[in-house]
Amino acid sequence: MSSLVERLRSAGLTLPKPTPPNGSYVPFTRAGSLVFLAGATPMRDGVLQYSGTVGADLSVEDGRQAASICALNLLANLGLACDGDYARARALKVNGYVKCRPDFTQQPQVIDGASEIFRLAFGDRGDHARAAVGVLCLPRGATVEVEAIFEVV
Amino acid sequence: MSSLVERLRSAGLTLPKPTPPNGSYVPFTRAGSLVFLAGATPMRDGVLQYSGTVGADLSVEDGRQAASICALNLLANLGLACDGDYARARALKVNGYVKCRPDFTQQPQVIDGASEIFRLAFGDRGDHARAAVGVLCLPRGATVEVEAIFEVV
Amino acid sequence: MSSLVERLRSAGLTLPKPTPPNGSYVPFTRAGSLVFLAGATPMRDGVLQYSGTVGADLSVEDGRQAASICALNLLANLGLACDGDYARARALKVNGYVKCRPDFTQQPQVIDGASEIFRLAFGDRGDHARAAVGVLCLPRGATVEVEAIFEVV
Repeated sequence: MSSLVERLRSAGLTLPKPTPPNGSYVPFTRAGSLVFLAGATPMRDGVLQYSGTVGADLSVEDGRQAASICALNLLANLGLACDGDYARARALKVNGYVKCRPDFTQQPQVIDGASEIFRLAFGDRGDHARAAVGVLCLPRGATVEVEAIFEVV
Repeated sequence: MSSLVERLRSAGLTLPKPTPPNGSYVPFTRAGSLVFLAGATPMRDGVLQYSGTVGADLSVEDGRQAASICALNLLANLGLACDGDYARARALKVNGYVKCRPDFTQQPQVIDGASEIFRLAFGDRGDHARAAVGVLCLPRGATVEVEAIFEVV
Repeated sequence: MSSLVERLRSAGLTLPKPTPPNGSYVPFTRAGSLVFLAGATPMRDGVLQYSGTVGADLSVEDGRQAASICALNLLANLGLACDGDYARARALKVNGYVKCRPDFTQQPQVIDGASEIFRLAFGDRGDHARAAVGVLCLPRGATVEVEAIFEVV
């Protein structure tokens, strides 16, 4: 199997450097084989890429792109937890928060942008349970926030 | 002890068939004895049963009913994780999201509709920690979304 | 190392008595070494201390204070899970929900009020992954709700 970095590259994606925590917390914690990853926003090179509201000034596709950047940032932090040896990792749970209009109903399609990154990166080991909700607002004004639990053996 | 199906039936409830995931995720994942269940909405036979806003066009009792349907859907997916042998399962954590007015404060009473299903189904093994929040909107326009973590031994 | 109670006292803080659950759930559950703590609101002696909206009638500092009370209530319930022997406990994950204006972006600064309590109480063992989101409304009208997962060995 090709490496995670190669699988991302084949889709035109690059694994980013870890984004520093935005507050008094750490990028991940580990208990046994469970790894809890802090919520990620669509930051790239220190700049927030999406800050609008899905269903208002942003489309579902914009939201999907935002979610995919969140997922790449989660992968970067997961790398800290598994010393870059992603073959030891498996996705378990994803929670996605979407800043959207009150009548917006396609949160799942938005968060699929993150879920599909995990499927791309890990194949079947990327399968995860998930919840997606629409929220009023997010840190830094981000359009999407995604958090995840992984297993690292 | 009577079976989960019998306990539900004695309350006039039926265990539904599992609802297919609404996106690129799976109904549950398992790591050791932990089972992470994907968020469930008040779907029955493929049709959303509650899509209004609690405190506006829906009452607290409507919300409770919606939450109870979510819980039944979670039990259906839990059955996939324990091969229908519910005696091996125990509830750990529930998160409930309620689509409601900004001045609504009874999210706990709404999510009790789900918690009481777990108590009915499992007795003391249904006890769980919980968080309930009021959100702007949910997938498909659902009134309630509930997710859960169980232990399956 | 000084005890958790002493560390709190040195900062002018007191460990409260556990707050009874606000619904059909329990303060904590345990599976192996994982402890899931129910969501806590800024209750003190049975009275909600903060019920406004951050960014509207409440400041970021008000929100921080609210979050710190939530954290103290979580510590009280954690004490039930570890029989008051906090030396056995380590923080893993925190989720913070902030009732705020739609244009509010400083959820992390608000939830830092809880995270810093955990750092104060546990030192390095207080480090945790975290997600913070802005929500429409919370139980009882609370300004902040915080939930957490700990490890207790």
